Formats: sequence, C-alpha cells, structure tokens
Amino acid sequence: MNWTEIFATRATRMKSSEIRELLKLLDQPDIISFAGGIPDPDLFPTAAFQTAISNALSPATQTIALQYSVSEGYGPLRDWLAQHMGGLGVPCTRDNILITSGSQQALDYLGKLLLSPGDTALLTWPTYLGALGAFNAYEPQYDRLDPGSNRSAADFADTAATKGGRVKFAYASVDFANPTGQTLDLSERLAVLNLADQLDIAVIEDAAYQALRYDGAAIPPMLALEIERKGSIEACRTLYCGSFSKTLAPGLRVGWLCGAADAISQVVLIKQAADLHSATLNQMAIAEVAENLFDDHTAKLRKTYAARRDAMLAALSAHMPAGVRWTKPEGGMFVWMTLPRGMDGATLLARALKHQKVAFVPGQAFFADGSEANTLRLSFSLADEAEIVTGMRRLGQAIRQLAS
Amino acid sequence: MNWTEIFATRATRMKSSEIRELLKLLDQPDIISFAGGIPDPDLFPTAAFQTAISNALSPATQTIALQYSVSEGYGPLRDWLAQHMGGLGVPCTRDNILITSGSQQALDYLGKLLLSPGDTALLTWPTYLGALGAFNAYEPQYDRLDPGSNRSAADFADTAATKGGRVKFAYASVDFANPTGQTLDLSERLAVLNLADQLDIAVIEDAAYQALRYDGAAIPPMLALEIERKGSIEACRTLYCGSFSKTLAPGLRVGWLCGAADAISQVVLIKQAADLHSATLNQMAIAEVAENLFDDHTAKLRKTYAARRDAMLAALSAHMPAGVRWTKPEGGMFVWMTLPRGMDGATLLARALKHQKVAFVPGQAFFADGSEANTLRLSFSLADEAEIVTGMRRLGQAIRQLAS
Repeated sequence: MNWTEIFATRATRMKSSEIRELLKLLDQPDIISFAGGIPDPDLFPTAAFQTAISNALSPATQTIALQYSVSEGYGPLRDWLAQHMGGLGVPCTRDNILITSGSQQALDYLGKLLLSPGDTALLTWPTYLGALGAFNAYEPQYDRLDPGSNRSAADFADTAATKGGRVKFAYASVDFANPTGQTLDLSERLAVLNLADQLDIAVIEDAAYQALRYDGAAIPPMLALEIERKGSIEACRTLYCGSFSKTLAPGLRVGWLCGAADAISQVVLIKQAADLHSATLNQMAIAEVAENLFDDHTAKLRKTYAARRDAMLAALSAHMPAGVRWTKPEGGMFVWMTLPRGMDGATLLARALKHQKVAFVPGQAFFADGSEANTLRLSFSLADEAEIVTGMRRLGQAIRQLAS
Repeated sequence: MNWTEIFATRATRMKSSEIRELLKLLDQPDIISFAGGIPDPDLFPTAAFQTAISNALSPATQTIALQYSVSEGYGPLRDWLAQHMGGLGVPCTRDNILITSGSQQALDYLGKLLLSPGDTALLTWPTYLGALGAFNAYEPQYDRLDPGSNRSAADFADTAATKGGRVKFAYASVDFANPTGQTLDLSERLAVLNLADQLDIAVIEDAAYQALRYDGAAIPPMLALEIERKGSIEACRTLYCGSFSKTLAPGLRVGWLCGAADAISQVVLIKQAADLHSATLNQMAIAEVAENLFDDHTAKLRKTYAARRDAMLAALSAHMPAGVRWTKPEGGMFVWMTLPRGMDGATLLARALKHQKVAFVPGQAFFADGSEANTLRLSFSLADEAEIVTGMRRLGQAIRQLAS
C-alpha cells in the first residue's frame, strides 16, 4: 500500500523535527549537550507528586481520578489557575480556563480553531519550533510579526489576501522565548495588541516560561494589558497559553488556555472531539502540588537556573571569538547565538559533535522561511555550572576551527 | 470581539454533543440512568495503580516518569502491546504501535492524517458519536458502509468524486459496537477488507470493546484477517485502534494505534506536533498493571458485565410492549433499541425523565445523516442488576405512555 497517496494534503507539511532527530545522536556520555530545552529532572518535586497521587487514588476520590471526566478539566485546578491568573493581572473565573495536555496541545487546538488552509498566521522570526509544527497541520501561510516595525495593518491584510486567506492571529512567546531567550517589552506588547485590534484577529500569547524570571521587572502578560484597556477578559482577543512543564513536571502533560469564555467554550468542543479530556489523575496531582508549593518551588528553580544562566553568559564572554553575538536572557532556559555571517549552524554542529563533543541546536529550523542559518540555540537548564564552562570553551574552539 | 468571524470553516461542524448536554441533567439521585457508556468505577484496579505509580516515581525511574519523552510512547508498554496484539493474531513489533491519549485521540489523528476537506469517510449507520466528532473537524463527506450490501466499489468512488474528493477510509467498530452492541461477523469483516482493497483506502478498526466478549466465539480483528491474506502487517491497510479505557481505567487516557510502520511513523509526526507525547507516568502505570493482571482483571469484568447484560435482556423481554425491538450483544456495554416507527427517542427521553425517572441516549445523533429517530441506546455497564430490572420496567411504562 502506498500510504502517501491517501494522506491528506496537510501531511506534506509534517516532517520530523530536526531537533528530535538530533537528540537521538546525543546519547554518548562524553558529549556536553546544550541542545534539549528541557527542565532538570533533579529539580522535580517527586515526593510531593507521590503524596498527591496517593491522595487522589484514595477511596474518596479514586472514581474522580480514574473515570471519564469533562473536557474543560478538573474544577479545583481550573479554580487554582483562575486565582493564579488573577495574580498576573488577569481577573477571571474557571469558565475562562481550559486544561490542555501541555501548552503544545493548546497551540494545536488554536490552529484548529482559527486556521483554514491559506489563512495567515503572524509569527516572530525566529519562533518556537513546536508552534510551527502545530500550526503547519492546518496549512497556513506565515507572515513576519515584528513588533518594532511600522508596517501597517493594511499591508498585513493585503499580503494575506494575495495568499488566499486572511490574517487570523498573531502568535508570540512573550517571556524569555524559545529559542531566543528574548522578552517582548511593554511597548512591543502594546504594539501587538494594537495591530490585532486593527486587523480584528486573535492574539496567541505563549507564556510557557512566565514563572522563570531571574532578574529585571516583570512585564504584564498581553492578556492583562488588554484587560486593562477593555475592562474584562470577555472583551479580549488574547488567548494565553500556560504550562506546568517548566515549573512542576513536563511528563504529566498539564497546561492551560485562558481567555474569553466565548472562545474557550469552542476550544472545549475541539478537545471533546479530539481526546475527550486530559488525564484527571494528572490534573489532581498538579492541583495539589501547585496549591502546596508552586511559589516555593519556582523560587528554588529560579535560583538554580539563574546561576546556570550566569555561568553561561560569563563563559561566553570568556571563550567566544570576535564576531559572535548572543542574547542576555532575563529568564527561561535559552541563549540565542548569532555566528559571523556565512557560518552555518548545522555545519558547526557536525564539527562540534565530532571534534569538541559539544552539542546545541542549529537555528535555521526556527525560521518559518528557513533563513538565517548562521544562528544556534543554547540551553542552560540541564548542564551544571562546571559543564557549562567546559562546554562554552569547547564551543568557542569549534567556532574558531570552522572559521579557520 | 465576534469570535465566529475568525473561526476556521471547520468550526461550523463542531457542536456540543447531545449526550454530553444530556448527562448534565442526570445528577438527580432518583433517576436510574442507562445513558453513559462508561465503566463501573467500583471495578477499577485502584490498588494496583497505587503500587504501579509509586514504583514509577521511585528514584530509579522518576526522571522517566516526569520528564519529556518520545512521541511514540513508553517502550515497555509498546512491547507489551505488541505481544498482546500477537495474541489477537497480529504479529508485530513496537514499531507498529503508537500510544495515544485514549483511542479517541487515535481517531482524531487518523482524520488528520487522511482527510482533506471534501474527502469521503465510509461509516456504518449508526456509528460511534465520538468518531463523527473527531472526523468532522477535517470536513469530510460521509457515505454509508453496509458490509451486507452489494454496492460496488465503483459506485462508492463515483459518489465521493461528485462530492469533491475521494474515499479515504472505511471506519468500523467491530465488536459489540457503540451504540448498537452489534458485532461484524467474519464475512462482513472480509467484505470491508475487499471493498478497501478495491478502493485502495485505509480501514480504521475501532476495537475499544474487544476484551469484553461474554459469549460466542471470538472473531479475529480485521487487521489479523488482512495479515493472513497479505503475509505481514507492513502490507496491510488496516489501522487498529485499541483502548485501556474499558478494561483498566478511562481517566488515565491511554490507548494505542497498531498498523503498518509506514503509517504509524506519519501519525507519530502528527502526535509530536499536537501534544508531544502522552503522559509517561500514566503509560508506566498502565504497563505495570496490564503486565500483572490484564487477563485476570478482564475476566472479572466480563463476569460482572455479562450478568448485567443478562439482567437487561431478561428485563427487556419481560417489560417491553409489542413492536419494540432490541439487539442481543455478545459483549461490550450497549443494547440498541428500535421503537415503533414514528415514535421519537428524544421525545421519549423527555417524558421518561419526567414521569418515570429513567434515562438513556436517543439514537438519532448516532446517524451521520440524522435519520432513524425511533432508536435509543441503553448501557448496562453501570447499574446493578436490581436497578436494571426496575429501570427496564420504567422504560416499558414510558413507551406505553407515549404510545397511548
């Protein structure tokens, strides 16, 4: 049977992630890897999960934990999240919250909700690879969201029309973005909201790293800024995607979507048809652990990761040759590096793996148009400080070798 | 903001499930409900899950349980399932298995894999409501799959072409189907495979109830029959959707897809872009519990549910007025009732709830074309035998009242 003959047209846009394929090569113990953007498992609150799950499976609640449930998610977790969002400047109720299987699922569902083939999604260049993957399934066109530019709404709309659809949303990772580590400042957030108002489109705010700020002043989420302008979440076009993957544990697959109830209720229908609901036991465990220790635990994460970021930035200054630039993130897990023009991140990786035993992710895949191959992403979340110093020295040597 | 203006065209086909809305009305304690097609939570192997999860969160494996993982699923569970499928006549390896968040997710992903807007899916009439919901998101046309008819492949192909696409798959729930309780016999299974070969389409085999056969001889899955003909799973067009929801626990959301590696690997890419992976802790818990007690536990379920089915069939014979017909399922959870022509299942439900305090699901929603309103679905999985007898007496009275 020739499967490709009966695949839907969207299948042509689904390709194996370069990062994923790459990660399969990194099992050798002598390689220092800055490739995977994943939390340090030594920091998981495992004992708290043991207790919470044991409680959830007690006779009083085992039926709730193990039986079918509603697509919206576990009520007490939605209530905790409504309160949590309130603390971020987003007053709301559980009706504004849908529990998803990680924020990746929220991105998939929002693509499904909004994109007909040929519609345009606005993205920053570069952008989160998982967002491109999720949206690609709905066969959109992409246009470049650059909050610093003066490009007019009419120009975005005209460009989308020539591509056969209309602009449906602007997607932005706002805090310490994957892959750049950069944060949208207040004026950039307001610029995105202004553009969205003019185009009458949704805003998808990816806040996966929101709780991991190490220094600098917190900037309100775009959803909070929009509520300030419009008075109520129900009048807002911003849909906020949150995740427990970077704060409590990714393996439980619990994230959330927060926005106007009119939009949330439609995404609930999508979830009902797609996987019925996220695992209730996992939601109960997250609810109890979040209730008991979210603030203390994220404080501990910030302390550990901030030290690793500092170690990386210091080692970069010490070991990078001239002509190499990198971002200085105020949080999150990533530093983005720009190599001298003409140097290719993928070529560098092949050499660095072989000769210097150091790994990272080449940057080209993060661009919707595949441009800017002279970039790479470094994650500082998993290696300890000594490894970071050694790794950056090796990377500097690999760059010098490639340049010579 | 007017959300409906920016929704994708597919949103018009996403409506709240009638059953779901209905279930919200059933919280009154004096109603005997045969509406929800859900397992009895008193039969969940909760203690075994406690132990399995505690083991998964032990220091040796907590990182595996809580960290990001691969989209294919947890290796030991895929190995157990490959062996399990072997026992059903489907020799295969872990490369033929993808773990999904319930078999509902497999249906969503297969719609995503195969259906471009306007393509045709073949379905039995009536069919599983969740399959209609999952496929609707990809804007297909439906045509009626009737394994007993002599309709030619050319006629199916021509009909699909006039609707603007081609036939992509035939979907069938093979054992004790939701909602009818009926099973495709050997000749019907072979007829579906023949039609699929002639049309060069996929076959989606929904086997959610496979382990719940109470009497009669087991019939091999369509995938096993196709392997018998073609020599290897890699040459087969059948994609088998399995689930632990009816055997171990639905709340953990663990199901699987089994088929040719060429198709599975493409669905892995879909899953990677849609939710990264199913929760690893849940997969580890299911793997241990399945390994330890799948056979013993399903034997216990069969004994309990068989007694309830027997009670329902006996009570139906005792209490139904003339002109009412119903199926005699050999397994599963459902009896399908056909009322006298002209009597409406939804009208009957409204009356039955009010005057007789008994609930069920009206049958019309299970038809892709909304036909045959004189039908209803009864589930015998949740009520005990005494309630079943009382409930069927009440239902008989409700039918007599509506007829008079």
